[in-house]
Amino acid sequence: MKAIQVVGYHEPLRAAEVPEPEVTGPFDVIVKIGGAGVCRTDLHILEGQWAEKSGVALPYTIGHENAGWVHAVGSAVTNVAEGDKVIVHPLITCGLCPACRRGDDVHCVQSQFPGIDTHGGYAEYLKTSARSVVKIDDSLEPADVAALADAGLTAYHAAAKAARTLPPGSRCVVIGAGGLGHIGIQVLKAITAAELVVVDRNPEAVKLAVAIGADHGVVADGDHVEEVLDLTGGQGAEVVLDFVGEGGATRDGVAMLRRAGDYHVVGYGENLDVPTIDIISTEINFIGNLVGSYPDLCELMVLAARGQVKLHTTKYPLDRFQDAIDDLDAGRIRGRAILVP
Amino acid sequence: MKAIQVVGYHEPLRAAEVPEPEVTGPFDVIVKIGGAGVCRTDLHILEGQWAEKSGVALPYTIGHENAGWVHAVGSAVTNVAEGDKVIVHPLITCGLCPACRRGDDVHCVQSQFPGIDTHGGYAEYLKTSARSVVKIDDSLEPADVAALADAGLTAYHAAAKAARTLPPGSRCVVIGAGGLGHIGIQVLKAITAAELVVVDRNPEAVKLAVAIGADHGVVADGDHVEEVLDLTGGQGAEVVLDFVGEGGATRDGVAMLRRAGDYHVVGYGENLDVPTIDIISTEINFIGNLVGSYPDLCELMVLAARGQVKLHTTKYPLDRFQDAIDDLDAGRIRGRAILVP
Amino acid sequence: MKAIQVVGYHEPLRAAEVPEPEVTGPFDVIVKIGGAGVCRTDLHILEGQWAEKSGVALPYTIGHENAGWVHAVGSAVTNVAEGDKVIVHPLITCGLCPACRRGDDVHCVQSQFPGIDTHGGYAEYLKTSARSVVKIDDSLEPADVAALADAGLTAYHAAAKAARTLPPGSRCVVIGAGGLGHIGIQVLKAITAAELVVVDRNPEAVKLAVAIGADHGVVADGDHVEEVLDLTGGQGAEVVLDFVGEGGATRDGVAMLRRAGDYHVVGYGENLDVPTIDIISTEINFIGNLVGSYPDLCELMVLAARGQVKLHTTKYPLDRFQDAIDDLDAGRIRGRAILVP
Amino acid sequence: MKAIQVVGYHEPLRAAEVPEPEVTGPFDVIVKIGGAGVCRTDLHILEGQWAEKSGVALPYTIGHENAGWVHAVGSAVTNVAEGDKVIVHPLITCGLCPACRRGDDVHCVQSQFPGIDTHGGYAEYLKTSARSVVKIDDSLEPADVAALADAGLTAYHAAAKAARTLPPGSRCVVIGAGGLGHIGIQVLKAITAAELVVVDRNPEAVKLAVAIGADHGVVADGDHVEEVLDLTGGQGAEVVLDFVGEGGATRDGVAMLRRAGDYHVVGYGENLDVPTIDIISTEINFIGNLVGSYPDLCELMVLAARGQVKLHTTKYPLDRFQDAIDDLDAGRIRGRAILVP
Repeated sequence: MKAIQVVGYHEPLRAAEVPEPEVTGPFDVIVKIGGAGVCRTDLHILEGQWAEKSGVALPYTIGHENAGWVHAVGSAVTNVAEGDKVIVHPLITCGLCPACRRGDDVHCVQSQFPGIDTHGGYAEYLKTSARSVVKIDDSLEPADVAALADAGLTAYHAAAKAARTLPPGSRCVVIGAGGLGHIGIQVLKAITAAELVVVDRNPEAVKLAVAIGADHGVVADGDHVEEVLDLTGGQGAEVVLDFVGEGGATRDGVAMLRRAGDYHVVGYGENLDVPTIDIISTEINFIGNLVGSYPDLCELMVLAARGQVKLHTTKYPLDRFQDAIDDLDAGRIRGRAILVP
Repeated sequence: MKAIQVVGYHEPLRAAEVPEPEVTGPFDVIVKIGGAGVCRTDLHILEGQWAEKSGVALPYTIGHENAGWVHAVGSAVTNVAEGDKVIVHPLITCGLCPACRRGDDVHCVQSQFPGIDTHGGYAEYLKTSARSVVKIDDSLEPADVAALADAGLTAYHAAAKAARTLPPGSRCVVIGAGGLGHIGIQVLKAITAAELVVVDRNPEAVKLAVAIGADHGVVADGDHVEEVLDLTGGQGAEVVLDFVGEGGATRDGVAMLRRAGDYHVVGYGENLDVPTIDIISTEINFIGNLVGSYPDLCELMVLAARGQVKLHTTKYPLDRFQDAIDDLDAGRIRGRAILVP
Repeated sequence: MKAIQVVGYHEPLRAAEVPEPEVTGPFDVIVKIGGAGVCRTDLHILEGQWAEKSGVALPYTIGHENAGWVHAVGSAVTNVAEGDKVIVHPLITCGLCPACRRGDDVHCVQSQFPGIDTHGGYAEYLKTSARSVVKIDDSLEPADVAALADAGLTAYHAAAKAARTLPPGSRCVVIGAGGLGHIGIQVLKAITAAELVVVDRNPEAVKLAVAIGADHGVVADGDHVEEVLDLTGGQGAEVVLDFVGEGGATRDGVAMLRRAGDYHVVGYGENLDVPTIDIISTEINFIGNLVGSYPDLCELMVLAARGQVKLHTTKYPLDRFQDAIDDLDAGRIRGRAILVP
Repeated sequence: MKAIQVVGYHEPLRAAEVPEPEVTGPFDVIVKIGGAGVCRTDLHILEGQWAEKSGVALPYTIGHENAGWVHAVGSAVTNVAEGDKVIVHPLITCGLCPACRRGDDVHCVQSQFPGIDTHGGYAEYLKTSARSVVKIDDSLEPADVAALADAGLTAYHAAAKAARTLPPGSRCVVIGAGGLGHIGIQVLKAITAAELVVVDRNPEAVKLAVAIGADHGVVADGDHVEEVLDLTGGQGAEVVLDFVGEGGATRDGVAMLRRAGDYHVVGYGENLDVPTIDIISTEINFIGNLVGSYPDLCELMVLAARGQVKLHTTKYPLDRFQDAIDDLDAGRIRGRAILVP
């Protein structure tokens, strides 16, 4: 089959003809790819940023945001059958370690990450596990939802955790209205009645955020901390959801947080650097957020099927992978780029 | 009545004759002091560290860890009566703001803090509120429990919050086995079956921690991070309770924390300085902890009455306040110093 | 002032001229009534059903769903001022008992209930407490929201509790689409993305429920249990919210509940009668629901101000109280009847 | 191998020579039995009470409380290895259904129950799954802990759930100090500081309960409801844990429950029959409790290894199965009977 592979760091991806993956274990599932999201992480992989961390042997097929149809299943698979339309959770987890047994599979002690440390979905077929496939509603197309598999799932996970402390009347500041923030806002609208204040450097992104339901949009132009404090009665918001995590976002975000508030770290880059006396005297919390669990992905797919979470996509045939990469790198893509075999 | 007052910063405390406090409002409660804890914060007040923050007018009476007997009550007080033995919550709260109405009185928007920003308990009588007094068991003496009113209450609050994520089989690292840590360990023993690993620079404090029930004691001598990792299967602990917060404690403590773990900040001094990528890739949380609420103090008094939380105290007559201050400053006190009028 | 009073059980209400209530305690608040809801409970009071339970001395003024403007305040009131537009929580609570201190004021051990055991709001002025008044948004009128003070608050409380176990993809059966059910559906729509199945005997009520957002409407005509099971994959719903509680509702409702599900009891009348073996073998829970707390009422008023909870009302001048009572008794009122002084 | 089988209902068990179970699936685990608990349910099976419900084909091997050593494992098993000492969770669960994925494996939609609906552990070897085996501490012997696998696990599960609402100062009534109650009391002592009031008809059982740590023992002799109310300030307990569920236990138990309290149903037999008006006016909850999950069993084994949960056992060689059954039936066993191959 055709697959797009990393052949060397700081080198372009290359199309290759490789053997189709086959079922070898009882829980294996082979997915015929319907769409594979092109993610900024893919650019970082090519820059070698993940080389040491993943330890993957080159060449290998990238692509960690995948959806399609079940093509073949192992002997012990009972949750999906050939032909089922599915989205693929980014991790393959063991199901037996303490974290998996508590339903917290994201902290599985022996997980694999196709597209990062083993073959991914820029290809015609992908090998994954019964524990990773979620059936999607008839009304959804794999290529339309593929990009929810990782970026969208992370945003869902953080927003759903945040929602637990957001009763009506509370306020949530969303820092960053890009890919993840866009999903986060839609999720918060669907499952809370909190007042949403969205902050972004890009006035267009702020406008879009308000168009999809944010109560207030604030352009991060230097006065944004003060502006958010004005919008929150001078006290700050009960929750800050930070999808940026760099360029001073955490310093500004902490200044927007109310006493006893929760600061959700999702975006990353800079250090969180806060005096411990400020943490204890205002009794604030910093909550880490990784990608969502398998149940999180099931829930997100329900929101997608109900039309409560939508994603704008630009589709490229698999052969035009280089155009997708180039367009992403140049900031020419609105929403997400999707490769379609 | 006799009262010990701050008359100037960087000056010694001075004994004064002042009018007895009187009931003027409907919820006022006058407490005849049975014991007032001498706290390190009192030393900081004399050094002027709180001058700006509290804005208190000098001279004023210090002492924020108080217990005694109800001497007089306002017209609307229904929860205590003259003669009741009580411990005094350190804050006077309004009861009407959103935080008070949710039971989260520590975040009251208009609280007072006797001993810090108004007259405290180094005196014969203290004026407080019906919302601040907790009746104590007949078996307890005010002078024995006074020091639980602030330091002990903070330790209880943090330990009780931490306990929610400490099922049997989980591990909790306690950094700092001094005053607060000592209470924290006893609380964790009373309400969890978690494995307790106590870390302190002082070998004597570590020994004492093990004597009162810690499962493991680790002297912080340079190898302590590695030692804790060995004791926790190489993965770190589900919870770190940091009663130190300075001298590198947070750096070491984060290294002892397991994936998806909670880091409770209680002690303070240094900055918490952690790469956001570490926060999200291991999905750890940092939880701020201020003093406990009124219900927390009620619960702590139950543990004291059951003999599950004990505090070693050294009592001084009120007149000998300077000896108590000097002994505390010189590190000559085991447990806590208590002034007894 | 004018007041409408119970002068005897099984006798009509009577208009009387009574003294205006006055501030006598520090936390008293006098509210000039803008609207008072006429509730089915008022009919029951007249039938004598509450005589023994309330122990109220006749004559007294009824009316327990009140809203208006602050007319006068006691010396210690800080949360509202003369002229503020407010809705009145149905209970006057002490603020000092353990329940009040935990924010769970509904379980106050010494509460009063104006309109039930002391003078209520079918009058020009009502005496209540600072702990009972919630400021409402400028956009809301007292007469429009008064009926949310008790019936609406109960529905909000139950729906908000239920929402905690209703992630996207879960199902909630609402039994009863009358006054409370109507509010409950709107609340669930505002704070969850759960699939809502509404069951009622009245086809018109079912139609209305679907019009305001229920995903499925089921007329309770004998096949309704089977119909709900069909709509929930044969397994039943994660949550049943029972606003009826009589006429076999609990038997049917339990049959609609999924393994490990929560059955919220709100409506009442019959006995809950379930084999303990069924409770343990399916591990289901029965959750009692009383009226909501003060913070619940604050949250409900936010939903009202955002237009997410609406109530149809029919207004009557205070003088026409008998018409309102008669219309309610005869089933001639759509939505709620409101007396306006 | 030797196995003890049900050959007909209302007939005695019979020893048989049957083939050893073999690994056929990837997650199969064969356990060499070290001890198998003899449970009252086994008597009920022989009486035919489970015949229809389980649908098991006779003859089959009973025994659902098992512990021993891993004898063989399937190709995909990574959590245990040959020779490991293990206790066996009573259910074999699928690991793929929504309940399993949330960590709530007890509600697996396709579980098996060895000893009930397939071959159990009154034998030399048992076939189970990797998902069902929990490694136990070196200090524990299989025959000593086997009876914790089902009865003990149920008690742990209920007590651990109850503990969440039992802060210091709260009260928990335990109804029934037999097998399950005995474990429940020890668990509550280990993970809460709640005041424990134990009620049983048998004065010896009450004495034993107090000896292992209950704060108060009450003999159920007719005055027990009043006695419990006296012990709880006239208001009842925050939690009632009912391990009996028959003979009027629920009626008495509800009378011992405080406003806003939780009634945990564990024992079963009679109907729970409570007026809905009582449920809503006091806002009480009824919480169902089935056997514990796999993580629950891991936690219980930690308490056993720490010596915080102990069980008295009487051991019988496998051949003497009839004596064990007879002794259980005649009430001659203190603690639990264990068959040892």
